Amino acid sequence: MLDNILEQVQQGKLTVEEAKTKLASYENLGFAKIDYHRTKRTGFPEVIYGEGKTADQIISIMKAIQQNNNNVLATRVSEDKAEVIVEQFPEAQYDSRSRILYWKLQNDAALQREGYIAVICAGTSDLNVAEEAAITAEVFGSNVHRIYDVGVAGLHRLLDHLEEIQGATVSVVVAGMEGALGSVVGGLVSHPVIAVPTSVGYGANFQGLSALLSMLNSCSSGLSVVNIDNGFGAAYNAVMIDRLANQKSRE
Amino acid sequence: MLDNILEQVQQGKLTVEEAKTKLASYENLGFAKIDYHRTKRTGFPEVIYGEGKTADQIISIMKAIQQNNNNVLATRVSEDKAEVIVEQFPEAQYDSRSRILYWKLQNDAALQREGYIAVICAGTSDLNVAEEAAITAEVFGSNVHRIYDVGVAGLHRLLDHLEEIQGATVSVVVAGMEGALGSVVGGLVSHPVIAVPTSVGYGANFQGLSALLSMLNSCSSGLSVVNIDNGFGAAYNAVMIDRLANQKSRE
Amino acid sequence: MLDNILEQVQQGKLTVEEAKTKLASYENLGFAKIDYHRTKRTGFPEVIYGEGKTADQIISIMKAIQQNNNNVLATRVSEDKAEVIVEQFPEAQYDSRSRILYWKLQNDAALQREGYIAVICAGTSDLNVAEEAAITAEVFGSNVHRIYDVGVAGLHRLLDHLEEIQGATVSVVVAGMEGALGSVVGGLVSHPVIAVPTSVGYGANFQGLSALLSMLNSCSSGLSVVNIDNGFGAAYNAVMIDRLANQKSRE
Amino acid sequence: MLDNILEQVQQGKLTVEEAKTKLASYENLGFAKIDYHRTKRTGFPEVIYGEGKTADQIISIMKAIQQNNNNVLATRVSEDKAEVIVEQFPEAQYDSRSRILYWKLQNDAALQREGYIAVICAGTSDLNVAEEAAITAEVFGSNVHRIYDVGVAGLHRLLDHLEEIQGATVSVVVAGMEGALGSVVGGLVSHPVIAVPTSVGYGANFQGLSALLSMLNSCSSGLSVVNIDNGFGAAYNAVMIDRLANQKSRE
Amino acid sequence: MLDNILEQVQQGKLTVEEAKTKLASYENLGFAKIDYHRTKRTGFPEVIYGEGKTADQIISIMKAIQQNNNNVLATRVSEDKAEVIVEQFPEAQYDSRSRILYWKLQNDAALQREGYIAVICAGTSDLNVAEEAAITAEVFGSNVHRIYDVGVAGLHRLLDHLEEIQGATVSVVVAGMEGALGSVVGGLVSHPVIAVPTSVGYGANFQGLSALLSMLNSCSSGLSVVNIDNGFGAAYNAVMIDRLANQKSRE
Amino acid sequence: MLDNILEQVQQGKLTVEEAKTKLASYENLGFAKIDYHRTKRTGFPEVIYGEGKTADQIISIMKAIQQNNNNVLATRVSEDKAEVIVEQFPEAQYDSRSRILYWKLQNDAALQREGYIAVICAGTSDLNVAEEAAITAEVFGSNVHRIYDVGVAGLHRLLDHLEEIQGATVSVVVAGMEGALGSVVGGLVSHPVIAVPTSVGYGANFQGLSALLSMLNSCSSGLSVVNIDNGFGAAYNAVMIDRLANQKSRE
Amino acid sequence: MLDNILEQVQQGKLTVEEAKTKLASYENLGFAKIDYHRTKRTGFPEVIYGEGKTADQIISIMKAIQQNNNNVLATRVSEDKAEVIVEQFPEAQYDSRSRILYWKLQNDAALQREGYIAVICAGTSDLNVAEEAAITAEVFGSNVHRIYDVGVAGLHRLLDHLEEIQGATVSVVVAGMEGALGSVVGGLVSHPVIAVPTSVGYGANFQGLSALLSMLNSCSSGLSVVNIDNGFGAAYNAVMIDRLANQKSRE
Amino acid sequence: MLDNILEQVQQGKLTVEEAKTKLASYENLGFAKIDYHRTKRTGFPEVIYGEGKTADQIISIMKAIQQNNNNVLATRVSEDKAEVIVEQFPEAQYDSRSRILYWKLQNDAALQREGYIAVICAGTSDLNVAEEAAITAEVFGSNVHRIYDVGVAGLHRLLDHLEEIQGATVSVVVAGMEGALGSVVGGLVSHPVIAVPTSVGYGANFQGLSALLSMLNSCSSGLSVVNIDNGFGAAYNAVMIDRLANQKSRE
Repeated sequence: MLDNILEQVQQGKLTVEEAKTKLASYENLGFAKIDYHRTKRTGFPEVIYGEGKTADQIISIMKAIQQNNNNVLATRVSEDKAEVIVEQFPEAQYDSRSRILYWKLQNDAALQREGYIAVICAGTSDLNVAEEAAITAEVFGSNVHRIYDVGVAGLHRLLDHLEEIQGATVSVVVAGMEGALGSVVGGLVSHPVIAVPTSVGYGANFQGLSALLSMLNSCSSGLSVVNIDNGFGAAYNAVMIDRLANQKSRE
Repeated sequence: MLDNILEQVQQGKLTVEEAKTKLASYENLGFAKIDYHRTKRTGFPEVIYGEGKTADQIISIMKAIQQNNNNVLATRVSEDKAEVIVEQFPEAQYDSRSRILYWKLQNDAALQREGYIAVICAGTSDLNVAEEAAITAEVFGSNVHRIYDVGVAGLHRLLDHLEEIQGATVSVVVAGMEGALGSVVGGLVSHPVIAVPTSVGYGANFQGLSALLSMLNSCSSGLSVVNIDNGFGAAYNAVMIDRLANQKSRE
Repeated sequence: MLDNILEQVQQGKLTVEEAKTKLASYENLGFAKIDYHRTKRTGFPEVIYGEGKTADQIISIMKAIQQNNNNVLATRVSEDKAEVIVEQFPEAQYDSRSRILYWKLQNDAALQREGYIAVICAGTSDLNVAEEAAITAEVFGSNVHRIYDVGVAGLHRLLDHLEEIQGATVSVVVAGMEGALGSVVGGLVSHPVIAVPTSVGYGANFQGLSALLSMLNSCSSGLSVVNIDNGFGAAYNAVMIDRLANQKSRE
Repeated sequence: MLDNILEQVQQGKLTVEEAKTKLASYENLGFAKIDYHRTKRTGFPEVIYGEGKTADQIISIMKAIQQNNNNVLATRVSEDKAEVIVEQFPEAQYDSRSRILYWKLQNDAALQREGYIAVICAGTSDLNVAEEAAITAEVFGSNVHRIYDVGVAGLHRLLDHLEEIQGATVSVVVAGMEGALGSVVGGLVSHPVIAVPTSVGYGANFQGLSALLSMLNSCSSGLSVVNIDNGFGAAYNAVMIDRLANQKSRE
Repeated sequence: MLDNILEQVQQGKLTVEEAKTKLASYENLGFAKIDYHRTKRTGFPEVIYGEGKTADQIISIMKAIQQNNNNVLATRVSEDKAEVIVEQFPEAQYDSRSRILYWKLQNDAALQREGYIAVICAGTSDLNVAEEAAITAEVFGSNVHRIYDVGVAGLHRLLDHLEEIQGATVSVVVAGMEGALGSVVGGLVSHPVIAVPTSVGYGANFQGLSALLSMLNSCSSGLSVVNIDNGFGAAYNAVMIDRLANQKSRE
Repeated sequence: MLDNILEQVQQGKLTVEEAKTKLASYENLGFAKIDYHRTKRTGFPEVIYGEGKTADQIISIMKAIQQNNNNVLATRVSEDKAEVIVEQFPEAQYDSRSRILYWKLQNDAALQREGYIAVICAGTSDLNVAEEAAITAEVFGSNVHRIYDVGVAGLHRLLDHLEEIQGATVSVVVAGMEGALGSVVGGLVSHPVIAVPTSVGYGANFQGLSALLSMLNSCSSGLSVVNIDNGFGAAYNAVMIDRLANQKSRE
Repeated sequence: MLDNILEQVQQGKLTVEEAKTKLASYENLGFAKIDYHRTKRTGFPEVIYGEGKTADQIISIMKAIQQNNNNVLATRVSEDKAEVIVEQFPEAQYDSRSRILYWKLQNDAALQREGYIAVICAGTSDLNVAEEAAITAEVFGSNVHRIYDVGVAGLHRLLDHLEEIQGATVSVVVAGMEGALGSVVGGLVSHPVIAVPTSVGYGANFQGLSALLSMLNSCSSGLSVVNIDNGFGAAYNAVMIDRLANQKSRE
Repeated sequence: MLDNILEQVQQGKLTVEEAKTKLASYENLGFAKIDYHRTKRTGFPEVIYGEGKTADQIISIMKAIQQNNNNVLATRVSEDKAEVIVEQFPEAQYDSRSRILYWKLQNDAALQREGYIAVICAGTSDLNVAEEAAITAEVFGSNVHRIYDVGVAGLHRLLDHLEEIQGATVSVVVAGMEGALGSVVGGLVSHPVIAVPTSVGYGANFQGLSALLSMLNSCSSGLSVVNIDNGFGAAYNAVMIDRLANQKSRE
């Protein structure tokens, strides 16, 4: 593309001023492809972090994205805000457990693929974070198998789902308290595991620190960790891997 | 006993001075029974914490105990010191892995009992601490089953020993890194589990903090925790429970 | 049992399909005995962690357990929720200090035994956690002696109860602030002590960290520790030990 | 396979005893495939964590693995130990920067694949950890592009390699101090990034805590984190992803 | 000045009492110039830290300052308090984003100077702290260029403003989460950078600790750090530097 | 006293039962003198920690103390509770800044003494803690000089009170933020300094940790530290020292 | 004194230059009395912190002090350095346990007084710190009673010394591990207690943090705390109090 | 410059290939000016961080820099390495206290300027860090006034240098332990203060954390902080400010 611009200048088809503008935009696009272009090409929706934004702010961002014919996903949207938003933006869907609000193009073939992500969680109190991961992955076009309430205190519950877990392309493991589920799943599968510590617990849990340290120090290889309660981040990673594994043929 | 003294005073069998001495000694014994008397009655050996003591200091304490015809166990004795001690005290036995040095009366029937303590450890690097626990328990007269190198990264290794673990009176679980083994064992047995976090690991392990927090936050009930690397303390607790369970008939 | 199934197959008494189902269930039971079977055999009630569950969720779990003719104990149930639950489930009892709600079969002989657990607490502010421990232990069938407000700042109050404490099978020591009571009791008794740090205090207490570290570093042997404010967990451990010590004859 | 065993019992081809043995081994294999079988099938070498093992222990493990005709990789092997090992095991190769010692079958076609992993590091002091990642990935059969000394203090050095980084299947980013490189790379690529905080730095670095927290809190999506200095773990994750992306056709 | 007083005593122009008073005041002024005198000479307004003060307290302090014909700036004033204050002190201006309330003399030539401070922030959630810095600097008489929402996840947004940032006399960089923006800006400019970590984030952010450690450990030279969320402090430093650079001719 | 009891038994003046009761009470008194007896002898009031107690509980404790003709001081009593208490106990006095509620016998000569305690605080936000110290000391009978708002940012304010501070028997220094005032005062006086870190501040203050560590690490000798915000504890220490220094003649 | 100088100037007895010098020295002395003058008047020796100083540096400081006819005390002097120093300064005395080196004028009547300081320590490993406190206090002229090895694990040992402890003017309590001894002593005496946490312990002791937090959070009033292992600082405080209590008549 | 290149292409003076090369180099220079160009223009020496580099590595970097006719400064060079380097590079100068090794062009007029930086330190143990700051600043061409051993425990020592400190353009304050010196100096001057916490201290100092937190929480405005022991970083900041203030006329 640079060749092209320079040749056009050489041939007098572009003035110096025009060339400068184009070069500037080229430079910007060089970086911008990680933003706007990637979204277009991959079908990833734009993401809004809802915490600390007003309902009005979220609505205006969503409308801008919609005009680009792009999917949109907003995380950490409280029920109060969601009500206001959905009223003005009725095609959006809201899930109160994951606090995710999204709008998705129908029949977006670009998003469909084989294989599935296993979203596994330890206890019922980890459900919100697990759902943030699961719904994020689904809106991003991955298939999700939910395997919930399989904490290591009752190992047989986990082992009952062993085959289903081992069949996934990538697992997202969500656990609070001592976070042992990450290591146990990591030892049972041969695919990448994204571990999400949650702030569930009390006392020496220190708002998720115990699960976080536990997962970082896992004796199982093949585990990597995202921030406490960051279901979205885990799903984002998992979807990236899922696409690399299951979508190559389409590109 | 107080009645007795007072009655003897009443009956003129004791002078006031004699009574005072006896009452004083009674008072002291009231507290002292936790030291000297308990040792006598229960057959528990005296314990010496070897760290920061010289070989000479350890020898003189051991000799004093031996004169009371009591067993003795010294923890955290380095190999250097042990050599010096064993030279002067050849009936003592030293175990270099656990760094325990002990002297035990032959045929001490008072120490024998049924049932066993399971000492379980996650990896080979936790062996030293596990052996500190195992040998302590044995010197204190408990039977010990060692189940080593059964970390959760290879869950089948643990499950292969399930029956043996479930058959114990009490388990001591020794694990570093993320310490998940504590929770997993806790979920598989119906007896008390004493968890020992070890300082094994690196980075965000923070000298055992990760395993410690993990074990304190266990989602399994029936787990209690001792200090990092405190194999002796775990064994001491386990032996107490073992005696309550398996030695009642003899008392 | 495995022999049995295989023999029945050999003898044509079981089809391959039937054998598979049985083996599967055997396998599940292998792990499940830690859940359902243990409850049945031991008379332990099912336990519900009330925090983060709605009144409706708790009611439906309780009803399911009741149908199995099992006792049930729910911890950390706020007064608001308890009111709603008791209205629909009038045979349940609620204790507002410990925030425990439970339903217990009458005359459950399986739960009765000799000996007692001493539940000891330092100050009036530790009462809630101490009561969580005491009531849990009682619902689980242990006898409990409450020895409250005996913090080390007034040592004579503790020593006045020395005999009662020393007579217990196991002690649960509940203390906040500097948690010194754990070490002091540990030095006075020859039975296991389960220490519960509480989050009572301010400033450099750091939500219970001071008491937690204090108890983990106790100079007294025979102390093990559970999570901050975890009265339930301490009682669960204590009851396990109490059963081992006092209930053997009945099994 | 279960069907098969049961049918053989039914048909008298297996005695009950023989069936029991087979069922046991089946059960073990069920879990063991994550160990031994996975290694076989995938061509992953066996891994030995060298820290805390003697040269002799490492040699005997390596010989056992070699007899299984398997590759082997040992991490954290000091130069002292390596010298001893290589003397007795001359076909092994040692890399002193990464402290990795490995033995690899020639022409192991199973390990070859397309695409590459970018191993990126911030400063020369992060080299050891970066090399642990790079060599691990190579021994595991991935192609590696090393992009070193591109810390954010001189952003142009990083941007000079932008195309090469963006062309990778997955990136491993190794950085100490403030660990900002993770976020910056994460914002520039559309593939998964595995971030490795290192303990490089001083003062408020607190042995890698600053880089660790920085990476966990990255404002860039698509980043997941492994333990401080855990180059091996990062490579292990990256190789798993690389295989999913680039090796499907061969399976 | 000391000479002067003593000479006047010598010459009988001052009594001993008068000299004592003068010496005392001299001494006090020696220190007091850092308070009152500095304010006068430099045109710096008096500053009130509003947190923990009532509206009434703030009003009475403001009135006292106004009588000295001095500018005044109050930070961390909540909207509630501001309403009350502005009602009684209508010439004051309130900015709700930065929570700053100030009163500024018109045409205060003493405050005007060349050059500008770049106030740069990473995300929209850092805006409040950035505005506290920006408005503080403006009230103190500096020119401010606001460069907002240029976090490193989208590096091109930052690079688009490169020239403007490089042209500043001093930069204030406001960032939460991983705080990488500090290092990146530090590497791109050759003037001093004051970094302000913010408490924006969640989980392992630990109320701003991650950004704080990140900035303290920056691999870029030329960065110094103020307390978490301390936009005012950063601006105060930046203004001092701005004056040294741009106002010398006037003194 | 023990002699006495035993002699009375010897002489038949006491039965064994009566002697036992007396000995028991003697024993209790032996420890109780630290509680009840000390209060009597020294004129120290009884102290109630109000946090976590209901108004009713406080009232009933106060009434019990009043019947013993003893002074009483309750700390951390919220304004709500205080209103209820004062209504029923109108002779009590409440100070809303220090949150102290107390009742003091008139003309309690036992409490008066020479000398004074300097209570020094850094900023207006430390006032509540400083007043808790000052009023505690006054109710305990010490004279108090309040030297407030003399933080080290304006050193001359502190130096203006140098003589008054140096004239005290003991100083209580109350400071939040960086707590430097403790070291500075410690370097200026030759009497004991009790330092009280406060939780005043934000960001890297971590609820008083910065001031606490600062005071513990003081380069000035003669400083000792109490818990964060513990104005009462500091005053209690100061009063003990004040009595030792100024009240000996009266005993 | 200021009057005096000014009057002399007025009367021509001092030139302006002479007055300036005197005023300067007055000013300096105003602060210096905390240094040099206090030492003279009170008989306190000069103190040298030996850590990080060479033997030569210590010798030259000691000689300077000796020329002022003043006592000197150097803390944290290693045995190596002490040997070198004592060779050149043979009148100095060295104590290897406390690592204190000192030189004391004979028959320094100014230092003698009534009453005593109780230096109490928990275990033999706390001895070094306890001796640093005890010897410091003795060199500063206080009488010291050593009550060692009375940790709370054997409460009767402490209670055996109750009367001796209660008879002291002030206590210094030295304890590592959980530091409970501070609270227990604090509850048994009615005089000030200076608590010294030591770094003795392992695991979750975190280099003395557990004892430090424990002592700061003591439930006993009348306790104040110095830095970890700071025996000198505790003694310094105790001596100050001892002087206030026992030396008034002489001043 | 961009204009220029494009015009040359337009005029046929540059081929497309040549233009591409130039544009690339322009782009690189765009960022590189922060590296190489800044050094040239400003006379700043190149800086080498010596820790973790071998003597040979340092020599070869120094030679490369020397060929560019540039000054060079290497920090954290141990005495061992320095000896080797100076032997091969005899024109280099080494300062063992600051561990700085540098080579400076004679008569480098570009580096000279008016005004001075005050480098202030609390105690003799902070000297190494203070010298790292002082020598760095001098090699970078600033004038430095050293004001050492003026810790707040003896405030008069600091106040004796008040005028000298207040006369500086910028101060670097180096202090360990409680770091109070930062706040005290900050309150006494009206120029920017760069505070350097040092790791000097013990116990609750936690390797410099106490001084770091103290300085970040300073109650004095105008203070900013660099990493623990980072004398170089503080000097780098101070020199930047010094140049802005004192060198403008020359540019």
